[in-house]
Amino acid sequence: MKVNSDLLAERRKAAVSSNVLTPLLYGPKLMKVFEQLKPLLDDPLVDTQDVWVMNNQQRYLRACERAERLVRLIRKYGWADKPEILRGVQIFQGDDFFLNLHFVMFVPTIEALAGDDQRQKWLPLAKDFRIIGTYSQTELGHGSNVAGLETTADLDLQTDEWVLNTPTLESTKWWPGGLGKSCTHCILMARLRIKGNDYGVHPFMLQVRDLENHKTLPGIMLMHIGQKLGYNGMDNGGMQLKGARIPRTSLLMRFYSVDKQGNYSVRGNLKLIYGTMTFTRQAIIAAGSMHLARAVVIATRYSAVRRQFSMSIATQPAGTVITNRPQEVQILDYTSQQYLLFPLLASTIGFMFAGHMVHRKYEQFQREAAEGNIKRLEEVHAITSSLKASITMVVVEGIECCRRICGGHGYLLSAGLPIHLANYLPQITYEGDFVVLSIQAGRSLMKAVQLRENGVTPYDLEKSSTRYVYEFDPSVELKAPEDDAIDLNNPEFQLKAFQQRSNVLIQKTFMKLAAAMGENDNNLVISMDTVKVEFTRLAHAHSHACVLKAFHDRLRQVQKENAAAYKIMKDLCDIYAIYWMHESFGEFVATKVLAPDHDDILMSTLKNLFKSIRPQAIAITDAFNFSDDFLNSVLGRYDGRIYEAIVDAASREPLNDKDVTDGYYRSIQYILHPERKATSSKL
Amino acid sequence: MKVNSDLLAERRKAAVSSNVLTPLLYGPKLMKVFEQLKPLLDDPLVDTQDVWVMNNQQRYLRACERAERLVRLIRKYGWADKPEILRGVQIFQGDDFFLNLHFVMFVPTIEALAGDDQRQKWLPLAKDFRIIGTYSQTELGHGSNVAGLETTADLDLQTDEWVLNTPTLESTKWWPGGLGKSCTHCILMARLRIKGNDYGVHPFMLQVRDLENHKTLPGIMLMHIGQKLGYNGMDNGGMQLKGARIPRTSLLMRFYSVDKQGNYSVRGNLKLIYGTMTFTRQAIIAAGSMHLARAVVIATRYSAVRRQFSMSIATQPAGTVITNRPQEVQILDYTSQQYLLFPLLASTIGFMFAGHMVHRKYEQFQREAAEGNIKRLEEVHAITSSLKASITMVVVEGIECCRRICGGHGYLLSAGLPIHLANYLPQITYEGDFVVLSIQAGRSLMKAVQLRENGVTPYDLEKSSTRYVYEFDPSVELKAPEDDAIDLNNPEFQLKAFQQRSNVLIQKTFMKLAAAMGENDNNLVISMDTVKVEFTRLAHAHSHACVLKAFHDRLRQVQKENAAAYKIMKDLCDIYAIYWMHESFGEFVATKVLAPDHDDILMSTLKNLFKSIRPQAIAITDAFNFSDDFLNSVLGRYDGRIYEAIVDAASREPLNDKDVTDGYYRSIQYILHPERKATSSKL
Ligand SMILES: Cc1cc2nc3c(=O)[nH]c(=O)nc-3n(C[C@H](O)[C@H](O)[C@H](O)COP(=O)(O)OP(=O)(O)OC[C@H]3O[C@@H](n4cnc5c(N)ncnc54)[C@H](O)[C@@H]3O)c2cc1C
Ligand SMILES: Cc1cc2nc3c(=O)[nH]c(=O)nc-3n(C[C@H](O)[C@H](O)[C@H](O)COP(=O)(O)OP(=O)(O)OC[C@H]3O[C@@H](n4cnc5c(N)ncnc54)[C@H](O)[C@@H]3O)c2cc1C
Repeated sequence: MKVNSDLLAERRKAAVSSNVLTPLLYGPKLMKVFEQLKPLLDDPLVDTQDVWVMNNQQRYLRACERAERLVRLIRKYGWADKPEILRGVQIFQGDDFFLNLHFVMFVPTIEALAGDDQRQKWLPLAKDFRIIGTYSQTELGHGSNVAGLETTADLDLQTDEWVLNTPTLESTKWWPGGLGKSCTHCILMARLRIKGNDYGVHPFMLQVRDLENHKTLPGIMLMHIGQKLGYNGMDNGGMQLKGARIPRTSLLMRFYSVDKQGNYSVRGNLKLIYGTMTFTRQAIIAAGSMHLARAVVIATRYSAVRRQFSMSIATQPAGTVITNRPQEVQILDYTSQQYLLFPLLASTIGFMFAGHMVHRKYEQFQREAAEGNIKRLEEVHAITSSLKASITMVVVEGIECCRRICGGHGYLLSAGLPIHLANYLPQITYEGDFVVLSIQAGRSLMKAVQLRENGVTPYDLEKSSTRYVYEFDPSVELKAPEDDAIDLNNPEFQLKAFQQRSNVLIQKTFMKLAAAMGENDNNLVISMDTVKVEFTRLAHAHSHACVLKAFHDRLRQVQKENAAAYKIMKDLCDIYAIYWMHESFGEFVATKVLAPDHDDILMSTLKNLFKSIRPQAIAITDAFNFSDDFLNSVLGRYDGRIYEAIVDAASREPLNDKDVTDGYYRSIQYILHPERKATSSKL
Repeated sequence: MKVNSDLLAERRKAAVSSNVLTPLLYGPKLMKVFEQLKPLLDDPLVDTQDVWVMNNQQRYLRACERAERLVRLIRKYGWADKPEILRGVQIFQGDDFFLNLHFVMFVPTIEALAGDDQRQKWLPLAKDFRIIGTYSQTELGHGSNVAGLETTADLDLQTDEWVLNTPTLESTKWWPGGLGKSCTHCILMARLRIKGNDYGVHPFMLQVRDLENHKTLPGIMLMHIGQKLGYNGMDNGGMQLKGARIPRTSLLMRFYSVDKQGNYSVRGNLKLIYGTMTFTRQAIIAAGSMHLARAVVIATRYSAVRRQFSMSIATQPAGTVITNRPQEVQILDYTSQQYLLFPLLASTIGFMFAGHMVHRKYEQFQREAAEGNIKRLEEVHAITSSLKASITMVVVEGIECCRRICGGHGYLLSAGLPIHLANYLPQITYEGDFVVLSIQAGRSLMKAVQLRENGVTPYDLEKSSTRYVYEFDPSVELKAPEDDAIDLNNPEFQLKAFQQRSNVLIQKTFMKLAAAMGENDNNLVISMDTVKVEFTRLAHAHSHACVLKAFHDRLRQVQKENAAAYKIMKDLCDIYAIYWMHESFGEFVATKVLAPDHDDILMSTLKNLFKSIRPQAIAITDAFNFSDDFLNSVLGRYDGRIYEAIVDAASREPLNDKDVTDGYYRSIQYILHPERKATSSKL
């Protein structure tokens, strides 16, 4: 394989070889996952070049083929019971399709909310794909406000069945992934009603298609909701229910029960239900870094291969004979390109470590919860909602940034970035819209302040990610530091900076909220609305403080393992910290972390760090170990042969099958030769 | 037509009827254009619902049909000679297709660069669509760096012809719109060579397809470059040239001439060529507000119809019978939604007025240039590059913001926003990548400082958009104002604020650049690289200062015309100014326009303004007068009947033709029933 000489040179000059970096990035647990995932990583299903030329129907068909192939791998290697492997599968399976929901929502909901008997009945079927399920909550009229759902499940005491209805157009179920054409079952969220009493929204198991012939069952109308901006391997579905019936025992009964006589009761601690909601969020957080990395790898490699303009003064007066055409510069050498790219690289790695941290926290919470201790819930809730809202936003904007800094070619589907962006975009919306989730994060942080004011020390403060909130003393007057107290590359300074910014914002918001409560008869909902913008800032502030802490914690370990790698990681951590200070400079100044004149020192420190990380950039991106099939990008290839690849991809475009297309025969010729025919318009 | 009751109520409560606002928004000139455009606006070609379900090939075919229909309208109404009508056509023609390039690049380039004889020969053909042309500059290897293009045109003295070649893979022409399958001609940018001497890149007229049968001509290989993220009605093309021949007189000869003997000469002022480059940029600037408006109208209407959550405290303990389900709130009432939406509405209107201003400036420049006076060039260059770089970025991010604040439904193609976003995205790249253009803007502003330092007063200072730069005195020491000097709603305060922020940034960058020159042997190219990030900020800062000025200028006129409308426009202008101060608070503090503690007053003033503009929001969006066909959005309909429209759009998805799809027969059944057949994978 002939590799582009710029990339070769980049790889040679790196201080550390990429395969030394890989395990430091991923950590032992993920390394083992990748090891086990090898059969998938090497499988043709990972390669999605086909998506470049497909239409919606073809793409769905292809997704079905991928699903079948994936299930064969899962059966062969026994992955169905290994959640960490399945998480990896989601990232590397090539395209999104209905099985995602089966893994991420259907099976976990059964595990969390079904009673013991129900679990024993459904889980083996689901894990062997004898049934394929999705999660059916959102309706045309209600998404974020789950309590407002209108689908009804009425208990028919005569037949011991639930009668299901979507009584209004707005209550049509809308969006469940795989519900349109693929899934046989779903968890249905519907209002549980007995004898006219409405007990609110509850989870039911609903079979929607015949297992023999896949036909839609009576009383159910299913439809595909149509094309979306991306994510079109997935058949998101719509569903109307007109008196469909399911057995009483279809209610998921771990926390609720309804007997034959229609007696309704609640059992156990309902708060645990919120615990399971954090499951998907932590998975989204953990995956975020991989999605951003994918884009960063493409843009970095392209920037090392792409040359544009020269740095020597070569402009000759127009109209003269050109005698000198100097070598052009790798665009990766431009400070503006570095400013757009390296902070994303740094964020990727920060998010990676933060993802590991949140995952450990979640596991710990699960272990404790299994023993009846859910004291960590509030903290887990605060960190997962903050990080989910904040990280998905940075990733979305980061992928798009990577796309645009590839110039025109970044707009080609074959560049990989457009499809990746389009597929990733809804992650800021589903599993908690970014604003709605920020409100939850903000509310959680408000509670922490309240507890602090009441002198309460939360559970396991030592290890809590909100510890800095509890340790903050709002009565101490803050003053922006003098110039000589600025120590940007010092981890302690950095962490203190991010925590102070977050604390002061939290405190100010708390005061505003308190004032609003006074003005609004203590109506919390109305009062909270007045600080929602502030809440979205808090979510980011808390998130960055947590990510930075995770970065530092990991750095200390790396320092023991490899000095050269440590230097690289430390630079990246500094870039992360200083870039985000610079980006949110207004907040850092307003919270007295920095003074108005410190703008310049941030920028100059950042530029120095870029110089330092520049020679390592390709090695770092190589360290992610992404295959060309996975990257699926003519610009991000390991061999850097971008121009051949661009042309090769274009040659597959079906419109290239003919020189003179139907468009000419049907229309263009009558533009050029209006006399040929008085065409009647086809529109 | 039954209109959604929320929208009805909104329309009733507005202080001014939307049709009073319309002419104030657009101004008399545009109003006349719309009047004339009526046959197009009412034409079915504007409606692009078809795009929701199409694949690339169908979309191209449809684009050809649209093109034919459009040409029939243009011929019928004699629009070919009316550039202002054609600019309107581009926005309302439904989809993008090859004629865009014909109008925006091909004809204007002939007008600007062809000699008199050539113009007489080509313009009538082009304006009657007997030839259809595009602009063929970018190559696989070179986009921004035009001087680096590699395509060659060698003069063959024997035959008096140019021999055209793309000697390398990288010199393959790539991207020209319509070159793949549609255009018969193009302006070819190629290195002019005579007797081995390279005179650099020059424009040539090249016929690429046979006018009789549309076949590609000898020595030319054309291809479609494949699917893109959006903009797929356009067949962007690739072209390789292998010894194709064109007459010597194909060189566009207004500024250059080559005689039979191969004598090359330059005539006239080459700087005029740069003048014409600003033509397309000002057109992009002028169109930006319309593109943003389109998204804002959709998101605002949806936000007025969509209700989610209630503002009264209604949470009842889980497991109890629900007795109270209060009315939910229009999401437009949430401060967070307002914070994301209203500043975009305000920016739309600011950009509209700025677009008019730039257009007038451009026309003035053209008039003067026709008389040999190009003294306004530098200013026109600075303002068009700043505004193009800055406005397209705000518009891109604004469209995506509008999409995401529509929640899940914003991700449906039928929401209109995804397609609109995808089509608009490349505007940050073509006609000057956002960074490359910022560099030009920055450089221009550096020149202004240099002139000021040299005591030079530029041409027509009084009316110059850089006047504030020339009037700035860097020796005056700046101090952030006391609280009582903050007067946010005062136009003078606002303008001073934006100009000071811009001036201080410009000055600081100038100093940094000077220092870098010292460190880099006065190598301007290397030195400039060290301040490119600063240049991107300057472009935004200058742009906002110019937009705000245009907003104020227009406001003064509106004030005379209609008091109620003035109040609305003034609120919007204040929102524009204060929101962007708040967004870039760090810069305003660093440049001593504001003090660190002024964060809060910005936010509270903004929230008050939102309250004031809230009841007018729908009337303002109605005032843009966009038809449902143009908006092409199930969420943005005038009648607000969103849910019916969403379902109706989905019913057209071809995958809904069958209940059980091919995906089941080919794949899913073997997942559910592995025993049915040992499938061989189709992948
Ligand atoms: C690709 C995709 C896949 C999906 N898959 C599934 C699935 O498998 N199963 C399923 O059940 N659902 C699914 N969904 C639906 C998804 O969960 C919802 O779209 C999501 O919860 C957001 O809800 P919404 O669309 O109703 O937005 P809305 O709640 O209507 O939000 C619209 C706007 O209002 C704002 N807003 C709402 N409430 C408030 C408030 N109280 N204060 C301030 N602002 C507010 C939001 O911030 C947003 O800007 C999917 C959606 C997408 C896009
Ligand atoms: C949809 C679409 C339609 C188009 N239509 C046409 C057409 O009709 N005719 C035609 O000829 N072309 C067309 N183009 C091409 C377009 O003009 C180029 O893509 C554009 O000029 C950018 O150039 P590039 O792609 O080479 O980017 P590059 O110049 O390669 O830029 C890549 C990256 O490098 C950075 N960079 C480059 N130079 C510098 C520098 N000196 N300093 C710092 N950073 C730098 C850029 O900021 C960018 O981030 C089209 C492109 C698109 C996407």
